[in-house]
Amino acid sequence: MRTIFHRTLALIILVSATLNGQSNDEARKAYMKEANLIFDTALESGRAYEMLRELTKTIGHRLSGSPQAAAAIEWARLTMIDAGLENVHLQKVMVPRWVRGPVEQARIINSPSIGTEELSVCALGRSIGTPEQGITAEVIEVHDFDQVRALGNRAKGKIIFYNRPFSRKERNTFSGYRGAVDQRSLGAVEAAKVGAVAVLVRSMTPNLDDVPHTGALRYQDGVKKIPAAAISTMDAEMLSSVLKNDGSVRVTLRLSAKTLPDVMSYNVIGELKGTDIPDEVVLLGGHLDSWDKGEGAHDDGSGCVQSIEALRLLKELGLRPKRTLRAVMFINEENGLRGGRTYADSVAASGPKHIVAIESDRGGFMPVGFTVSADGDRLRSVARWSYLFSQIGADRIRKGGGGADIGPLGRLGTLTIGLLPESQRYFTYHHTDLDVFEAVDRRELELGAASMAILAYVLANEGVR
Amino acid sequence: MRTIFHRTLALIILVSATLNGQSNDEARKAYMKEANLIFDTALESGRAYEMLRELTKTIGHRLSGSPQAAAAIEWARLTMIDAGLENVHLQKVMVPRWVRGPVEQARIINSPSIGTEELSVCALGRSIGTPEQGITAEVIEVHDFDQVRALGNRAKGKIIFYNRPFSRKERNTFSGYRGAVDQRSLGAVEAAKVGAVAVLVRSMTPNLDDVPHTGALRYQDGVKKIPAAAISTMDAEMLSSVLKNDGSVRVTLRLSAKTLPDVMSYNVIGELKGTDIPDEVVLLGGHLDSWDKGEGAHDDGSGCVQSIEALRLLKELGLRPKRTLRAVMFINEENGLRGGRTYADSVAASGPKHIVAIESDRGGFMPVGFTVSADGDRLRSVARWSYLFSQIGADRIRKGGGGADIGPLGRLGTLTIGLLPESQRYFTYHHTDLDVFEAVDRRELELGAASMAILAYVLANEGVR
Repeated sequence: MRTIFHRTLALIILVSATLNGQSNDEARKAYMKEANLIFDTALESGRAYEMLRELTKTIGHRLSGSPQAAAAIEWARLTMIDAGLENVHLQKVMVPRWVRGPVEQARIINSPSIGTEELSVCALGRSIGTPEQGITAEVIEVHDFDQVRALGNRAKGKIIFYNRPFSRKERNTFSGYRGAVDQRSLGAVEAAKVGAVAVLVRSMTPNLDDVPHTGALRYQDGVKKIPAAAISTMDAEMLSSVLKNDGSVRVTLRLSAKTLPDVMSYNVIGELKGTDIPDEVVLLGGHLDSWDKGEGAHDDGSGCVQSIEALRLLKELGLRPKRTLRAVMFINEENGLRGGRTYADSVAASGPKHIVAIESDRGGFMPVGFTVSADGDRLRSVARWSYLFSQIGADRIRKGGGGADIGPLGRLGTLTIGLLPESQRYFTYHHTDLDVFEAVDRRELELGAASMAILAYVLANEGVR
Repeated sequence: MRTIFHRTLALIILVSATLNGQSNDEARKAYMKEANLIFDTALESGRAYEMLRELTKTIGHRLSGSPQAAAAIEWARLTMIDAGLENVHLQKVMVPRWVRGPVEQARIINSPSIGTEELSVCALGRSIGTPEQGITAEVIEVHDFDQVRALGNRAKGKIIFYNRPFSRKERNTFSGYRGAVDQRSLGAVEAAKVGAVAVLVRSMTPNLDDVPHTGALRYQDGVKKIPAAAISTMDAEMLSSVLKNDGSVRVTLRLSAKTLPDVMSYNVIGELKGTDIPDEVVLLGGHLDSWDKGEGAHDDGSGCVQSIEALRLLKELGLRPKRTLRAVMFINEENGLRGGRTYADSVAASGPKHIVAIESDRGGFMPVGFTVSADGDRLRSVARWSYLFSQIGADRIRKGGGGADIGPLGRLGTLTIGLLPESQRYFTYHHTDLDVFEAVDRRELELGAASMAILAYVLANEGVR
């Protein structure tokens, strides 16, 4: 009796596993057909590129709190409505208001070897300005904070020049960035601690060019704020060689940067309501603010238009998943992250539950996969869909970061995922005058939007571990 | 006895297989270390980008038989010597000499809906010119040769306007190109057969822009030669809509293109002599000629500098393989392929034996793998090295084309391989004024050179099936 029971049970399990396997296969095939359709539509008639043209060419750059940021918020709201998104609304976020002002100038004074020479510089984001006549001081070159500390009293009254190169040999340029960016973010604090009066920081790029790259620095309570500017890599090389020749060099730095009172701003949110589990959300996002250089095309106009376009594509194709899809344009990623924090706070306070958040904030380049902030089963529950992306070579789904804006959501338990584009070109444009619409390729941008649409759609249907 | 013998034999086979497996593993690890070193060096101090800057900025475009082509040949010879290549020499090739001349103009005449309007056009390569006053005729739009044939007598005295779009939805843009390019290459012949007097061909790009794309057409013995021009995709759309509005439209086409007598030109060849089997060759190549638009940066300045740089990298690193490596800059790929044919003829006549030829002629974009003109064991003998390229995502080694210049070698039995870069951006630049140095990314170009160096090195050591 027991044996017959067991045999029957085993048979039932076997049959149901087989049936399940079959329906699983069929579901995977059905998703493949839908993925094909999404890629086809994106390449043939996707609108991300034209959205980006509007954002970058009619508004341009849009630092938090600026009039252009306000224009971008209204643009995003109208664009979401135009794309057929539902429940389009704004979420209040108080943001800092830093302004560069008209003056950013650095000049080598009376070098014995080259005389007087202008340097290609720009203020780092959040930097204070200099007195109007500037700060004139001797320059000391360093490569790391140990060297700064070792200077001790010799740093007093000097300009510290951080010149450790961005490693060129990293295969992924973000690794090179991570290895160099402490100089930009903490260089002013470390220099101030030993009495320096200003800092110059080699630009965060593996290239040799004459374009300074801005980006945020951090000041620290209790440490004197000193002005900080990025210097182009070519001028960093030049300044370094002048220092070697002359032994000592004086530079005058003039910056008009300042911080004004905080301003009311907004995250912009739109949805495609889920059919079966509408109170659970899969979020797609990018950040709407940019630095006040170029047009913020790759960083992160691309992520914004891809997120809107992903939902528009699904709506156009009648692909509405079980859970709700939500596009969020975060404000203030570059100098405060207040949009991402405010958003997560509101989710923590009153929901809805966010099972997944996918951010695109690595530029509008050719997608090669996704990074998932998890491993084990949780990673595998995303990686099992990689076959949907292999037709465009975007099937590398592996452990990695999600994105700055969705970091606070991740700390609430949301699985965060970052779109992973090919990284080689990113730091040519990042935070510079070169980050303009013309630097973005239509097909690469649209394929990123399609990839986000496909992953969001399948995860909103199937969930994650 | 038999049993003991068999057991012993089995043991010997097992042990030797294990030892062989170990040494195989070790060889594969050693190659991995060398590949790492090559990638490191290429990213840190590769010279392909600076070579390309010289070729494009001091010489520019270089159509076969032009003074600039002669300059490029001398540049390639000197650059090879400078890179430390051995046995640098020229191989004579008679090439055609087609010149565009100063006039290329097309104008809609007296359209009821838009009046007179200039169209953005350029002569197709090899096209004859028009009489000085131009050809003025009614335009008939078609999408394929069946439609042309169906026109019969109605085509007589008309300008045939080929307007079948380049498919945007192909994942690899070369598929879109293959699906549209018959209009450019054979459109004039098919139109002439039914009595047309000229053709306009929609430019070969998935983008909508105002840049005409040139490229070769073929005439056919016994069929009257008629002039042919490419029209930008935006003006093709415009002309098509004017035709719809007005029913019939007249266009005046003026081209000053002509073919002059053949000119003596050269392939440029340099080597790294092999250590053990120097009389067998692994070839790396690109084509030195370009269309007379832009600077021929992606097509194919990139392939040329990558081939020289691949050998320079190996030489710098002291990685000299068993077989000889040879870099070849082929002349006349664009309008004749005489460089590739002459080269293969000389190999057929007097060797040396070429076991592999690798061409880079799909632009200097991010490498994603290689295409191999073989399948089965022969393909696998290349694909087994894919692990060397996965660190940069260039491990897609699959069946596909080698390259036009090495096609004639392939017919002699050489295994031909094409470097496979990401294709999304190629047809934005292809055969236009936009194909300039600034469209090439340093890191992407250098990674292509490194990939070619690695594959050539390992195949020159290990051979292929």
